[in-house]
Amino acid sequence: MSFDARAALEARARTAPAEDAATAASRRAAASTWFRDLRDRMCAAFEAIEDDYAGPMNTGMAAGRFTRSTWDRPGGGGGEMSVMRGRVFEKVGVNISVVHGSFSPDFAKAIPGADRAPAEGGAAEGGADGAGAQFWAAGISLVAHMWSPHVPAAHMNTRHIRTTLGWFGGGGDLNPITPHAPDTERFHGAFKAACDAHDPAYYPRFKAWCDDYFDLPHRGEKRGVGGIFYDYLDSGDWTRDFAFTRDVGTTFLTVFPAIIRHHMNRPWTEAEREYQLIRRGRYAEFNLLYDRGTQFGLKTGGHTEAILMSMPPAAKWP
Amino acid sequence: MSFDARAALEARARTAPAEDAATAASRRAAASTWFRDLRDRMCAAFEAIEDDYAGPMNTGMAAGRFTRSTWDRPGGGGGEMSVMRGRVFEKVGVNISVVHGSFSPDFAKAIPGADRAPAEGGAAEGGADGAGAQFWAAGISLVAHMWSPHVPAAHMNTRHIRTTLGWFGGGGDLNPITPHAPDTERFHGAFKAACDAHDPAYYPRFKAWCDDYFDLPHRGEKRGVGGIFYDYLDSGDWTRDFAFTRDVGTTFLTVFPAIIRHHMNRPWTEAEREYQLIRRGRYAEFNLLYDRGTQFGLKTGGHTEAILMSMPPAAKWP
Repeated sequence: MSFDARAALEARARTAPAEDAATAASRRAAASTWFRDLRDRMCAAFEAIEDDYAGPMNTGMAAGRFTRSTWDRPGGGGGEMSVMRGRVFEKVGVNISVVHGSFSPDFAKAIPGADRAPAEGGAAEGGADGAGAQFWAAGISLVAHMWSPHVPAAHMNTRHIRTTLGWFGGGGDLNPITPHAPDTERFHGAFKAACDAHDPAYYPRFKAWCDDYFDLPHRGEKRGVGGIFYDYLDSGDWTRDFAFTRDVGTTFLTVFPAIIRHHMNRPWTEAEREYQLIRRGRYAEFNLLYDRGTQFGLKTGGHTEAILMSMPPAAKWP
Repeated sequence: MSFDARAALEARARTAPAEDAATAASRRAAASTWFRDLRDRMCAAFEAIEDDYAGPMNTGMAAGRFTRSTWDRPGGGGGEMSVMRGRVFEKVGVNISVVHGSFSPDFAKAIPGADRAPAEGGAAEGGADGAGAQFWAAGISLVAHMWSPHVPAAHMNTRHIRTTLGWFGGGGDLNPITPHAPDTERFHGAFKAACDAHDPAYYPRFKAWCDDYFDLPHRGEKRGVGGIFYDYLDSGDWTRDFAFTRDVGTTFLTVFPAIIRHHMNRPWTEAEREYQLIRRGRYAEFNLLYDRGTQFGLKTGGHTEAILMSMPPAAKWP
């Protein structure tokens, strides 16, 4: 990336006034509430798709419904997984989490603002014990794998992370089995519009970041047709950054269901399904070999089931 | 590991006399020839199993036959892949390779003996240009994924690597869908006998190394029921170490086909097959998240198709 978002975050933080404790608390509450609300809206939109399915495949299957389970993080906080196995969605997971605690000293070095004490008057995130580097993080993560090879798989994630700094990150990306130009344009167009409403620099930067990120160098391929990816977002205006992050979520909530509905009732062939399962192998390769969140989560004692919710329900390496 | 094989290799090499060029050439030739012969014997044994199958499943399928393809390594050497998709073997790959060339300076630091010039009178491996750290490596790698959930998957690999030092490595491990104690005992018993014939210290050391290696910490599980794993083997007697490495190959060639034949004709249920596909997901997780050879190969421009030959033909994360 030519624009170094992490360096910009750290530079801005050196001059920014510290939040007072009440502001910090209200921001944590607003972000967590939003991720939960967005989760509820996503699940409702996907269950409605299950109800409305009228295609010729999977005719013996009932419309899917999400089931929920919760997990606790040993160091503080936890999460809620919502998973649906339906007749349109082969497997879709929508996870939310709110976690807090201390980083190990080694680990803290990798996280902006986690390697120093809170500023004078600043809020100490992650609890009152004051031990180690404190953090608080909340987010939503969604991965949808579809029965139909005509319907793209998709991924959306947004998060708010707070150490002695605070920032937003996330994005959405589309993973068609066979790229379909109108879908690609629709998906990118929706995210471009959402970005442009906030800052005309966002879309080109975040699209390029997404292309850089979802790369399978050993295959000489990208994963999917991209979308946007952003991290370390702190413009200096928390309210504005939070609004942008909300718009990323609602954009995905609008555009992905529309793409699903456009294709879902079309039948597919056995050969198309086989090819889908092979493309799913690439998705699995990316997640296990390269995805930062997966590697980070599994190697730092994260909740394995929630992290690997992203894995395809079935994949082939024939 | 309480026994540090790599340190022992490096310590021994400081006092060992250098090989003359004729000895080095004959050792390279002997090792490469062996790996090719073993490949031929493995493929013949597995094709015979395909012929002899008499179970009630996959009745419409013909006995499988291996197909071969070759690849060239841009920096020197190449390999030959043999893959069979049959009625007993859902997918089995037997790869051999002989590669040579130079390591990048960064990479050379990770490889014993690659970070210094050849000893006075010593053979420079990997070509005559003298540029960079030179290496030569040959090996065989075998992964078998079976249709029947009653027949374990298995993996065997042996290799000879030469820098300014030279050593052998490899092993064999069994990956049953549901562990079956007599198979486990048979497999371990065969490798224990092969090890004991060379050095009574080998089996306990190499069994423990295998258990350490095939570990999925994020699942709190081991991959499979183990076997043996060894690396950096240089006892000071090349002929003896090569004989041990040949015995590892012939032991696998004896014991694995016997285990296959013991179970292959038994029918299985759909539920057993489903469980097999889920266990295959663990196999995929290990290979992509932890396996040194896979990570090393993919991140250093290895031949992707040969490296990922190990991936299961089908896997599920339901």
